[in-house]
Amino acid sequence: MSKGLRARRASGGDMEKERETLQAWKERVGQELDRVVAFWMEHSHDQEHGGFFTCLDREGRVYDDLKYVWLQGRQVWMYCRLYRTFQRFHHSQLLNAAKAGGEFLLRYARLAPPGKKCAFVLTRDGRPVKVQRTIFSECFYTMAMNELWRATGEVRYQTEAVEMMDQIVHWVREDASGLGRPQLQGAPTAEPMAVPMMLLNLVEQLGEADEELAGKYTELGDWCARRILQHVQRDGQAVLENVSEDGKELSGCLGRQQNPGHALEAGWFLLRHCIRKGDPELRAHVLDKFLLLPFRSGWDPDHGGLFYFQDADDFCPTQLEWAMKLWWPHSEAMIAFLMGYSESGDPVLLRLFYQVAEYTFRQFRDPEYGEWFGYLSREGKVALSIKGGPFKGCFHVPRCLAMCEEMLGAL
Amino acid sequence: MSKGLRARRASGGDMEKERETLQAWKERVGQELDRVVAFWMEHSHDQEHGGFFTCLDREGRVYDDLKYVWLQGRQVWMYCRLYRTFQRFHHSQLLNAAKAGGEFLLRYARLAPPGKKCAFVLTRDGRPVKVQRTIFSECFYTMAMNELWRATGEVRYQTEAVEMMDQIVHWVREDASGLGRPQLQGAPTAEPMAVPMMLLNLVEQLGEADEELAGKYTELGDWCARRILQHVQRDGQAVLENVSEDGKELSGCLGRQQNPGHALEAGWFLLRHCIRKGDPELRAHVLDKFLLLPFRSGWDPDHGGLFYFQDADDFCPTQLEWAMKLWWPHSEAMIAFLMGYSESGDPVLLRLFYQVAEYTFRQFRDPEYGEWFGYLSREGKVALSIKGGPFKGCFHVPRCLAMCEEMLGAL
Repeated sequence: MSKGLRARRASGGDMEKERETLQAWKERVGQELDRVVAFWMEHSHDQEHGGFFTCLDREGRVYDDLKYVWLQGRQVWMYCRLYRTFQRFHHSQLLNAAKAGGEFLLRYARLAPPGKKCAFVLTRDGRPVKVQRTIFSECFYTMAMNELWRATGEVRYQTEAVEMMDQIVHWVREDASGLGRPQLQGAPTAEPMAVPMMLLNLVEQLGEADEELAGKYTELGDWCARRILQHVQRDGQAVLENVSEDGKELSGCLGRQQNPGHALEAGWFLLRHCIRKGDPELRAHVLDKFLLLPFRSGWDPDHGGLFYFQDADDFCPTQLEWAMKLWWPHSEAMIAFLMGYSESGDPVLLRLFYQVAEYTFRQFRDPEYGEWFGYLSREGKVALSIKGGPFKGCFHVPRCLAMCEEMLGAL
Repeated sequence: MSKGLRARRASGGDMEKERETLQAWKERVGQELDRVVAFWMEHSHDQEHGGFFTCLDREGRVYDDLKYVWLQGRQVWMYCRLYRTFQRFHHSQLLNAAKAGGEFLLRYARLAPPGKKCAFVLTRDGRPVKVQRTIFSECFYTMAMNELWRATGEVRYQTEAVEMMDQIVHWVREDASGLGRPQLQGAPTAEPMAVPMMLLNLVEQLGEADEELAGKYTELGDWCARRILQHVQRDGQAVLENVSEDGKELSGCLGRQQNPGHALEAGWFLLRHCIRKGDPELRAHVLDKFLLLPFRSGWDPDHGGLFYFQDADDFCPTQLEWAMKLWWPHSEAMIAFLMGYSESGDPVLLRLFYQVAEYTFRQFRDPEYGEWFGYLSREGKVALSIKGGPFKGCFHVPRCLAMCEEMLGAL
């Protein structure tokens, strides 16, 4: 943090008061993390087949036993991460559940081994139900395997991770035909921001404390960052979810689509990239375009909270859920603003962290049964009482709480 | 209508008052139909390429120029139907727009002629953007072509319709591989109720005043009716959207999914089947299971209106929009209850028509710019201000109004 900003924070002698507030939030966040992890440990483990139930109602009852590969991989990753990096989570119950989830993925995730394409959702006993023609199941598989290797030291997990990573990079940068998407004459060659975001996240994951892989993926990381930055359009006035591969705005709703929470998530992925690079200029750009801009445009002035989807020309989005308030954009915003503050010391970012965190803890927490609600109406009422489903598992909430606890501790 | 019920309606000498109410609704519905048709005629016609813009905002401005094949076919069908059956719509402007839409479909809808598979969405100039691995684009294509033949007398349209119908029947009853769905080991062989519904609707469409085709499709119509009736599950206490092909309940959310508006639409498809068959026993069953039952379970006791999705075990549905109030379930309910009353004379069904129609006209109409809003919050607030989009075009509202005007006139 620069001396000037340190001074600014200290000025008026409110340093002490601020430290107390940060300390209070650290405790609040840490206690919430314990409750959230307890919810998943109590309700989501499939003792019979391994892996995790994620379709859990408010109280944790399983309302469907399908196993979504994204969420299986994410929960394995989360458990290993907590086991590795938090003393109080360093216990065998968490590691064994992660291993059982990892073995379930190894055995069943791929549709036709040795082929690498993974299913999107499996039956409880591992038979494929649906496939997506995207890279995301494979990305979360890779995250899970890399963390399992770090948590257990078993090399076979890391081999799986690196081989899958090579396949994903091949699909994205050389030949996507393996994903099975039909080539249609009128289909725009759109790049969803999720693709370079996800890859950048994997570069960070695989390169962590691993000089060899960090080196192997340096160029890929720079490429991802460039691609994500191409989504800043309209003279820097909008982050668009989909642009052409050469960085031009696309026509129609697809081209105008905005997702403030996703831009904020990209923001903290890019901030970590800046830290690795030691690039303060890029950092300033990221803070401006991926943190402050999406918050300005995406925060609901009437009811608070971040809109899910917006249209850059202020047409009404066609997504029925566009005005709903979802849990994950708010967890990503908490991470982004706290990381932005930790890196820049700019008190504006700390105030935004407090604003988002207060809204999030007030609206999404369930003091009665634990874990957070995922889906609120525009006005902030619980619209779906489920705690987990096809897209909500043990990931965004504990990742946010764990990262915030660490960052608050460091401040 | 049975003498007994005629007497019941007349009893208490309220026959006259009732006739006045029906007459008032006939005028209200007729005027609304004029306003709705005017909206689409003014805003949706693509004079350059033919076909229709359906992504229209509240005022009718085009916010996207993609052409969704379902909606192209539906609008052609609707225009021809109005042209054929309503004196006041029997004008060349409507017919010419329908023909231009039909020619657009003939030229561009199919992905690889002479192959029959159609795109789901096309660019404004007819290049394919997306394909669905279902029969629905092809079904609406068939409806459009059959009506164009009826409106113009040009045989080439009818040839298109009959050939496409044969292909659809082949996909559904003999070999679905042409649809390109991957066979996955864990995927249940589920039958969505939409498939036999859509086919039954086509049987009605193609067989109308056409003894030869009516004969050709008699067995198919009976098969469709049997298949739809298989969706009545749990000892007749629930209509489930998805069942196994041999009529068993499926596990999980998929098996428990209910869609009250869809059941009501199936109800009036089946009522017309009963009329053709002259089967009063089946009619009584349909009125009970496809009209009264879905209304009892699907009508929101707190805010009025029909829920979009429900879970047969009262778990929270995973669809984010489950509690929203959509325009089409309400237009289908108006048709179903008025048809049920016309056929049975049961005053309970007439009261339900009034209840749904009052809610629908109050909540969905836009007195300012015409056409109806499509998507309301659970509480009945407009959630999306669009008048048309990827799934809402010139179809459910005018079809409902036209059919209700005819039925009210006949009463």
